[in-house]
Amino acid sequence: MKYHLAGVEITYTGEQLRSNFAYKQFGVIGDSIVAFCGPCDVGMEWMVDIEDLRAGKAIYSESMLHFIVEHHDTDLEKNVLRQIVLADLVKDALNEHIGKTVVRRSHTDIYDGEFKLSVSVATVTPVSSLIHFGINISSSNTPVPTRGLGDYNVKPVDFAERIMQKYCREIEDAYRTRCKVKWVR
Amino acid sequence: MKYHLAGVEITYTGEQLRSNFAYKQFGVIGDSIVAFCGPCDVGMEWMVDIEDLRAGKAIYSESMLHFIVEHHDTDLEKNVLRQIVLADLVKDALNEHIGKTVVRRSHTDIYDGEFKLSVSVATVTPVSSLIHFGINISSSNTPVPTRGLGDYNVKPVDFAERIMQKYCREIEDAYRTRCKVKWVR
Amino acid sequence: MKYHLAGVEITYTGEQLRSNFAYKQFGVIGDSIVAFCGPCDVGMEWMVDIEDLRAGKAIYSESMLHFIVEHHDTDLEKNVLRQIVLADLVKDALNEHIGKTVVRRSHTDIYDGEFKLSVSVATVTPVSSLIHFGINISSSNTPVPTRGLGDYNVKPVDFAERIMQKYCREIEDAYRTRCKVKWVR
Amino acid sequence: MKYHLAGVEITYTGEQLRSNFAYKQFGVIGDSIVAFCGPCDVGMEWMVDIEDLRAGKAIYSESMLHFIVEHHDTDLEKNVLRQIVLADLVKDALNEHIGKTVVRRSHTDIYDGEFKLSVSVATVTPVSSLIHFGINISSSNTPVPTRGLGDYNVKPVDFAERIMQKYCREIEDAYRTRCKVKWVR
Amino acid sequence: MKYHLAGVEITYTGEQLRSNFAYKQFGVIGDSIVAFCGPCDVGMEWMVDIEDLRAGKAIYSESMLHFIVEHHDTDLEKNVLRQIVLADLVKDALNEHIGKTVVRRSHTDIYDGEFKLSVSVATVTPVSSLIHFGINISSSNTPVPTRGLGDYNVKPVDFAERIMQKYCREIEDAYRTRCKVKWVR
Amino acid sequence: MKYHLAGVEITYTGEQLRSNFAYKQFGVIGDSIVAFCGPCDVGMEWMVDIEDLRAGKAIYSESMLHFIVEHHDTDLEKNVLRQIVLADLVKDALNEHIGKTVVRRSHTDIYDGEFKLSVSVATVTPVSSLIHFGINISSSNTPVPTRGLGDYNVKPVDFAERIMQKYCREIEDAYRTRCKVKWVR
Repeated sequence: MKYHLAGVEITYTGEQLRSNFAYKQFGVIGDSIVAFCGPCDVGMEWMVDIEDLRAGKAIYSESMLHFIVEHHDTDLEKNVLRQIVLADLVKDALNEHIGKTVVRRSHTDIYDGEFKLSVSVATVTPVSSLIHFGINISSSNTPVPTRGLGDYNVKPVDFAERIMQKYCREIEDAYRTRCKVKWVR
Repeated sequence: MKYHLAGVEITYTGEQLRSNFAYKQFGVIGDSIVAFCGPCDVGMEWMVDIEDLRAGKAIYSESMLHFIVEHHDTDLEKNVLRQIVLADLVKDALNEHIGKTVVRRSHTDIYDGEFKLSVSVATVTPVSSLIHFGINISSSNTPVPTRGLGDYNVKPVDFAERIMQKYCREIEDAYRTRCKVKWVR
Repeated sequence: MKYHLAGVEITYTGEQLRSNFAYKQFGVIGDSIVAFCGPCDVGMEWMVDIEDLRAGKAIYSESMLHFIVEHHDTDLEKNVLRQIVLADLVKDALNEHIGKTVVRRSHTDIYDGEFKLSVSVATVTPVSSLIHFGINISSSNTPVPTRGLGDYNVKPVDFAERIMQKYCREIEDAYRTRCKVKWVR
Repeated sequence: MKYHLAGVEITYTGEQLRSNFAYKQFGVIGDSIVAFCGPCDVGMEWMVDIEDLRAGKAIYSESMLHFIVEHHDTDLEKNVLRQIVLADLVKDALNEHIGKTVVRRSHTDIYDGEFKLSVSVATVTPVSSLIHFGINISSSNTPVPTRGLGDYNVKPVDFAERIMQKYCREIEDAYRTRCKVKWVR
Repeated sequence: MKYHLAGVEITYTGEQLRSNFAYKQFGVIGDSIVAFCGPCDVGMEWMVDIEDLRAGKAIYSESMLHFIVEHHDTDLEKNVLRQIVLADLVKDALNEHIGKTVVRRSHTDIYDGEFKLSVSVATVTPVSSLIHFGINISSSNTPVPTRGLGDYNVKPVDFAERIMQKYCREIEDAYRTRCKVKWVR
Repeated sequence: MKYHLAGVEITYTGEQLRSNFAYKQFGVIGDSIVAFCGPCDVGMEWMVDIEDLRAGKAIYSESMLHFIVEHHDTDLEKNVLRQIVLADLVKDALNEHIGKTVVRRSHTDIYDGEFKLSVSVATVTPVSSLIHFGINISSSNTPVPTRGLGDYNVKPVDFAERIMQKYCREIEDAYRTRCKVKWVR
């Protein structure tokens, strides 16, 4: 499990949610979590969540911290579980930074009261499974009421680094955990 | 996904971590989470975590709230992810009850500072995957320094009910989530 | 397992055999069987069975009862077994209605003597597996000699309802069956 | 897919439902269906269906035709689908022999009115999946009201041969079917 | 496992690496290895190995012996193991023909000293897994220093036949091998 | 993928072919190949290959170099492919040491003419897959005509080290290979 933080801004348009994105873009081979900052602007043809598509909901943010996770297996159920774990790591890290519990997780998204902090989707390709998890940096001009990292004085780059380390650690621990148990009857 | 709360005390000895335990014991067929209160006393021959076995660590508690989760697939990696999600639900529910963040999750266990609140293991049988997650009710006479539900004035039965509802909800949401996405290239 | 009967006619062109069709078209999330009446007119570019493609066989019927089944796993072998089970349910329900054994199943299709009653195909997408099973309502103007529901005075809508209930029941029973057995050595 | 008819009587005690039974007993390697005639007498410790175990139901018949099917994969859901297909082939072959529809299938068992003709279970081992399907030859002295092949003047050996051929044919057709389709979006 | 040797020259452009190629092109249904002779000229849009794509490496040979292998499962890890086995069979058959060890395998390609003899890639489709393994017949005008079958006086057609037989035999032996072992604790 | 060479002699009795052997014996967690020297003496109750069991063939050698490989997945077909790859690495390394091609591989075993050098078996547990591959050090007193490492002046410890490095490298390359390809249609 590798991680990589992009040095430049990238607009997330949905096209990044493609197999081997981390390898093609950053030269990172294998299971990975990569992060970059930039706007979020996903057109209808790139939407992955059919519920959003049916609702005609725009996905837009002036500035977000984006994570793209890729695992080289194709079990979507497993990948949604990873998406929950990632959302939880983000929530806990935010609360820890803020010093009290203001952010809660509701399934695969995180909220501060009624304010939404994230957009997130998990899916598969024929060779891998992918997660996009985006957290607002700015909360201005979003289609729904939001909060962003800026509202909590969280520095995106440091935060990205911390989250990626935690996620890699969690996945590596999970591997270790499953390799040291006996099966039962 | 069904849940069931046992009306009587059961000592968790490790023998309960068997395929179809919920069906054999409570008549619950299919994926399930069941809970019961009782001591925890796992002998060497019933230990599932080989690390504990190698360390010769006793697993003992006078009184615990026990959860047994069974899913009818045999992917241990997926099951460890579920174990993390369950540990996280327990941690968040506890902090919510207490009203501030005193409990943290470290991989598949939960702690209050140096005090351990839980024992937990995930494994598989040839027909299903199983999780045991036990939370101390009493923190007296445990082999390592612990805290228990009693130390936070949490009522085990209500707490069990809430956790089981949350877990079932999370798993059902995960099913819904994976059935409403498009695959990508 | 959900089922849904469309209130309007839809021409089956092959484009309906797409992942999440039931959700996109009818708002039905999760494993499902949906039914609609309408012509069948599948162009070469939408044909799924390569044997038909190689033979250049047109798939055409003036009026058919169509079932689209989707399960959110991607095991084609399993899906062909489900296709056989569905074909069998249809055959038995028809014979039961007619009151004697006139329809027989040959692998995944059903016949009355030399007359073909059905077209059927099972395949996968990267997120799910799909079955199309179409039964002639009218037997006029088909490329091969056929029989249709009309020839047996079977009302398509009632028949669709019955088949969908039977299929859901069978799949739910299969889940129950596999959750109540012990594994063996 | 191979089939084999045993030349001698064997009492089915449940011990036969073991991985590689066909190889160990008859030298048949690979996926197979084997048949033998003999009593059925399954003790509590060999029962596989926990529902029967919980009910304390004896499984006994003076004389049965037994099929043991083994496939070298471990997907229990798939195996229950095969069990349904096998039950259906038996039902149709019986009705065809009798010349009218007297036998019906209810999930994985077959009946003539209230009379039960079969016992059946599908399960897995860590290397394969197994089906036992037994049809009464004699209907005397069974714990529940039954019918047997003798009541319909069906010769067990010929019938076994026909069923095994049909099952092998169905599985081979299913392989062919899944190897000649295009995937869809 | 079937094999087929094409009677005519075909230029390998990358378009041949498609699901059901052997069925569509040669009428061969099921798991197969097929062979043909012809140039190799793979344009950027048909390249499967992203490392080559990133390096902008042309894949070109005037004359090659091509193998296309298809197995109807979608496990890429398993398919890379098959690719290694195939590369090994080719290497050993060449050395055997030459009468001494001049060809060595480095992961999925084969070499004579610094000279490359092969191009090879393994991938998946949503219904199957595919291998392309090409061995130079001529070593003239290749983008990197190469050797070809011609340099060792190996007749492509006979060699193709021998390799395909060996590969089919190996896969059939592997099936037999896995069907005659006991599982262990 | 880790490797470990035991510092002491261990008699291979078949009991070593157990899940998590490397962890329990040597503290090595995760996918691994471990090696040790010692006699081979497998009693009937520990035999894994049913063909040997049926033939009543003793498995005995005074002194062997043993490899135990464990991967934490349970696909026996994949594991037999790994067994072939390992046998091939051993054969090539031996021929390379000897300086000419005297050893050949026949499926999962290696031979020098009529003399057998190896015993080998691949199987699964409910949590992992295992390979035992043993090469004679001494060729004295074996039940069939054999050759051993001693006959070729190969030092077991150095050879073990080389093979384990090569196997780890191959598996790591295979992971890299599958993470850098595009899927195809």
